[in-house]
Amino acid sequence: MAGAPVRIEDPSDPRIAGFVSIRERDLTGRDGLFIAEGTVVLRMLGSAQAKANGFGCDAILLLENRLSGLSGVLAAFGNEVPVYVASAAVFDAVAGFNMHRGVLALGRKPASQTGAGLLGRVPETSLVLAGCGLSNHDNVGSIFRNAAAFGADAVFLDETSCDPLYRKAIRVSVGSVLSVPFSRGLGAQAMLEGLASAGFEIWGLSPRGAVSVAAIPAARRIALVLGTEGEGLPQSILSRFHTARIPQRPGLDSLNVATASGIALYQIALAMGRVD
Amino acid sequence: MAGAPVRIEDPSDPRIAGFVSIRERDLTGRDGLFIAEGTVVLRMLGSAQAKANGFGCDAILLLENRLSGLSGVLAAFGNEVPVYVASAAVFDAVAGFNMHRGVLALGRKPASQTGAGLLGRVPETSLVLAGCGLSNHDNVGSIFRNAAAFGADAVFLDETSCDPLYRKAIRVSVGSVLSVPFSRGLGAQAMLEGLASAGFEIWGLSPRGAVSVAAIPAARRIALVLGTEGEGLPQSILSRFHTARIPQRPGLDSLNVATASGIALYQIALAMGRVD
Repeated sequence: MAGAPVRIEDPSDPRIAGFVSIRERDLTGRDGLFIAEGTVVLRMLGSAQAKANGFGCDAILLLENRLSGLSGVLAAFGNEVPVYVASAAVFDAVAGFNMHRGVLALGRKPASQTGAGLLGRVPETSLVLAGCGLSNHDNVGSIFRNAAAFGADAVFLDETSCDPLYRKAIRVSVGSVLSVPFSRGLGAQAMLEGLASAGFEIWGLSPRGAVSVAAIPAARRIALVLGTEGEGLPQSILSRFHTARIPQRPGLDSLNVATASGIALYQIALAMGRVD
Repeated sequence: MAGAPVRIEDPSDPRIAGFVSIRERDLTGRDGLFIAEGTVVLRMLGSAQAKANGFGCDAILLLENRLSGLSGVLAAFGNEVPVYVASAAVFDAVAGFNMHRGVLALGRKPASQTGAGLLGRVPETSLVLAGCGLSNHDNVGSIFRNAAAFGADAVFLDETSCDPLYRKAIRVSVGSVLSVPFSRGLGAQAMLEGLASAGFEIWGLSPRGAVSVAAIPAARRIALVLGTEGEGLPQSILSRFHTARIPQRPGLDSLNVATASGIALYQIALAMGRVD
């Protein structure tokens, strides 16, 4: 159980300095921290902590009327995690805008999120996602949500993809960035060659893909590769690996990359017998 | 071809009053107007006009350096549509924020968007969407984008769903709200009974659906029904019509409704032989 609640009366209290003006700062991890908002995400953070998968929690800040409903969620945190409680007036003054949900936590990222360690930990039979140049936080959040829904074992992001622990990506993912293991930092080509060496069948998703996603055969290990919206995957990747497309009407604009990831994951998870 | 370009030097020029402070006003149609932003959406509006499907265009406002690249797009508009051109300074002062894309149009909605007329115009063989309580503009925009990608013939929205011609929904739909015919305004039950009477097989999408979306059989006319995110479709609808679910891992949070619509549309369009 997290620490006993401590009431904060002064917005400038140094114990809650980490929560000041979070909207403006939009913590992106240069200091190793991230902001978790809302009950669902707090629960996911507690669960990630309980699994000892590297995530930490520096502090929790709650609106006073939210405390009683959250005892089950707080039970997942260790008693070294301080819980601060504040009135709406103090809460709003601290967080810099009206945080209607009244539930915030200051999370701490795992020490390392590079790819090699993660690749050694994925299950023998695996479905993973690989992202190349995914620069939009909404899309990255949605892609993690889809990864969780279809039971993907990990997400590998290249060095040009954005940080999934950015506030907006966490929120859109409904906390899935805390439950689906991920790495980030390699160049796209090195990342994909590493997956291929580990026995993954690599399938690039592209409107110009060679076969329908419905024709991707089951395999022991499959990696679905997603490119940046608009440009898509570079030709160097498309010509090196398998490619698949989502059957759709011809037109100027293809599907949003997050929706496309959902459709392809659905189809591959069915083929692999991972959902029914 | 739209009218000859007219240069505007004064942000308070009455000829461009309709574009003032669009961000704050976020036109929602109480005056029958909507804002189209960007080249792609302007092209869709031109195409909608050319098809005489009821959309109008009151005026176009362009950043001066965008004019030369847009002649092909402007060709789709009648010469009664005025084209105004402004410098970045005037443009920003008019639109109230930095419109980087420099392409705006003031669209006019079709006179009537209620369901009866549309139901009489859908093709003999049809795939349509029906939305009940879709209140999020991002989701509605994404759903229209998916409808266009999979060739849906129409979208029927109940009276509690939001307006697809809201600025953000138009942008997220990449203009598909201008190409996919839609209606809005009936109660959910009346809307669905109308579709059933017109020979549609009605399939409600729900995590508690009776069969997998992969098992929805082809039919002459299929309507896929989507409920509001979170609550989902009401029991009265689920027990009256067919229901289908998207196979996924058990968990607290299901797929986003827009992603779910994409997966279900993909699967139904395949079953009906509408994409390959």
